[in-house]
Amino acid sequence: MDETVLAMAREAKSASRRLSSIPESTLNAALEAMAVALTNSQELLLLENAKDLKAGKERGMSSALLDRLTLTPARICGMVEGLRQVATLPFPVGEVISEADRPNGLHISRVRVPIGVIGIIYESRPNVTVDSAALCIKSGNAVILRGGSEAIHSNVALAEIISKAGEGVGLPTGAIQLIRSTDREAAKSLMQAEGLVDLLIPRGGEALKKTILENARVPVLTSLGGNCHTYIDASADVKMAADIAFNAKVSRPSVCNAMETLLVHKEVAAALLPVLVKWLIEAKVEVRGCDRVREICPEAIAATERDWETEYLDLILAIRVVDSLDEAIQHIQDYGTGHSEAIVTASDENATMFIAAIDAACVYVNASTRFTDGFEFGLGAEVGISTQKLHARGPIGLRELTTYKYIVTGTGQIRA
Amino acid sequence: MDETVLAMAREAKSASRRLSSIPESTLNAALEAMAVALTNSQELLLLENAKDLKAGKERGMSSALLDRLTLTPARICGMVEGLRQVATLPFPVGEVISEADRPNGLHISRVRVPIGVIGIIYESRPNVTVDSAALCIKSGNAVILRGGSEAIHSNVALAEIISKAGEGVGLPTGAIQLIRSTDREAAKSLMQAEGLVDLLIPRGGEALKKTILENARVPVLTSLGGNCHTYIDASADVKMAADIAFNAKVSRPSVCNAMETLLVHKEVAAALLPVLVKWLIEAKVEVRGCDRVREICPEAIAATERDWETEYLDLILAIRVVDSLDEAIQHIQDYGTGHSEAIVTASDENATMFIAAIDAACVYVNASTRFTDGFEFGLGAEVGISTQKLHARGPIGLRELTTYKYIVTGTGQIRA
Repeated sequence: MDETVLAMAREAKSASRRLSSIPESTLNAALEAMAVALTNSQELLLLENAKDLKAGKERGMSSALLDRLTLTPARICGMVEGLRQVATLPFPVGEVISEADRPNGLHISRVRVPIGVIGIIYESRPNVTVDSAALCIKSGNAVILRGGSEAIHSNVALAEIISKAGEGVGLPTGAIQLIRSTDREAAKSLMQAEGLVDLLIPRGGEALKKTILENARVPVLTSLGGNCHTYIDASADVKMAADIAFNAKVSRPSVCNAMETLLVHKEVAAALLPVLVKWLIEAKVEVRGCDRVREICPEAIAATERDWETEYLDLILAIRVVDSLDEAIQHIQDYGTGHSEAIVTASDENATMFIAAIDAACVYVNASTRFTDGFEFGLGAEVGISTQKLHARGPIGLRELTTYKYIVTGTGQIRA
Repeated sequence: MDETVLAMAREAKSASRRLSSIPESTLNAALEAMAVALTNSQELLLLENAKDLKAGKERGMSSALLDRLTLTPARICGMVEGLRQVATLPFPVGEVISEADRPNGLHISRVRVPIGVIGIIYESRPNVTVDSAALCIKSGNAVILRGGSEAIHSNVALAEIISKAGEGVGLPTGAIQLIRSTDREAAKSLMQAEGLVDLLIPRGGEALKKTILENARVPVLTSLGGNCHTYIDASADVKMAADIAFNAKVSRPSVCNAMETLLVHKEVAAALLPVLVKWLIEAKVEVRGCDRVREICPEAIAATERDWETEYLDLILAIRVVDSLDEAIQHIQDYGTGHSEAIVTASDENATMFIAAIDAACVYVNASTRFTDGFEFGLGAEVGISTQKLHARGPIGLRELTTYKYIVTGTGQIRA
């Protein structure tokens, strides 16, 4: 174990104990102080970021990755706005979720409290440093950040600025910390700091999540991938179906709520597929279809079993014609990852059956799966999406960064 | 992996998909059918139980364990009553936890759904077979039971009777299953059935829980022990403090919500301790105290660091005199396991400080920690207590055996 990381985790645990009873006004003041400090530190940030960019270029980083890594005055401004937006979000801590007076006179309430210490392991984009810290602090948690080595100079500068600004207006020491070591051992220590780190959230690609799930000994909240489906029912409006399918695939193919496989009822295939597939191919989507798709659209490549299993995260779409709603449901049960699944239908009955049968974080009727997102759901910012069934499913916003405790007040009650 | 167990888990997963849309009336009818079937199977149950008792005696099982293992007509009656009580509990599935109309016209609701397949691993008392199955079924989950080898004949008989009775009135095949193999490999396969078992709940001693936490690859919900404290504040009513402390230790020392360490403010020690310690010793409690306790009560044995760490689950109590509320909070933060912690005080201010500072599933003011229990909290029956911070804290009742999904309905919305 990396002793520096363990010492950080102990300091974070200590900070979290003080954070749990700090009022919302102090937390909001800290977010505002961070916003001001970032605004005033543009020059330093751009200088530190330039070091990362130089190193990235020297290592032959792709221009797409270099772009993700780049800070600009506009992007710094975006982080500042993000901080101020989080400050306006409703404060989740202290909410009385339920309460009851028991026959013996005990008053029992269930009250929302921070989780404690949250570890965030992420890649590439330096803005995640600020976004993650903001959400953890606003929910009363201490946070330990571990960014990618490619952004280490930017991340260290960002974390120092916001941590110092927060402490200046009353955040406890250690409320926001960033791991400076880029060693794997340091990350592993964070994953295994049992009793100190209460929750670990990975923000990044599937490889990062897999490493964390394999190594973590502390609780993890994450998505296990988004092999998302859209099923076009026999009764679907063809225009609506094409719009939704196109949007679900093309609007941002690299994200987890993008559609990967389209299922089409045989009765609507001939009307829908020629138009839709042409449109997709024009948008540079590689279309892979089952035999029945290829009868209608010979331009589609033959899909294999492998295609039904794959989360492409790219401009590739698998299409399958099915005989029935039941077959579509069965396909989704067999291949889905429980992220976001949609039906397009004019039948309330079929919509109800689909909703009941599909076991996923988000089930859609007549809308694009691309809406699975904290902002779109009205939660404000999110630190990711959960496909787990325990604790939180779907977007992980402020409420999902809390737990609860029972508070029982009496007048001397003892148990018989 | 044990192929029989994996096949059971696959059947349970399939059953869980059908269970998720079975109406409450069918689930209640199944519980009633189980109650009737158990009532009509008394003779068989007593015969099978006699086999377990005979084997237990031959292996030299203690009379206490033999008693826990014994079925009697009255105990069968208790299980039958338990089934009928669970049928009367509010149905958690389908509850709309929250809903909202978004500016783009999407209607987003968060709806309570079953978790899926729940594994229960337990020891000794055969009634756990019936209680656990009842709670899982009433919350729409499929259940795989794994009891102790010492009760295998009783458990197999109980599970067969209730499973057959349930299927007779509409439960899907595989909704209630019991692992017949008493091999460790079988239990381990249940713990590692990733993607099939959605949640594993151990019901038994700390050794069982430890084994499960070390081996499980599926999510586990459990208590990590109950090193529970009661702190007697300077302002406490001495009579109330003595009553609460005595009850928290003596009423049932073997359970996780029993007090293990008593913390006493120095200003109230001289008034409280002589009376309380005498009373405890009369009740056969071994009292271990710090030096300041032993100055007042020389009959106390000297406590060591080890005592503050120990969950005795026995008629032993550690007592420590502290200088302040802060010192008491620090002690609980250092040694507590986040289960149930109490303050006895006449000061609202100190009660508030204690509640805010103590990070535990249940925090008590002027009441015995022994109330941490599903029935006492008004949740009805429970399958245990959670000291975890994710998903559920405190008693695990029907609501804690559910998760939620987002249901998003639109009219063709696509994301910009």
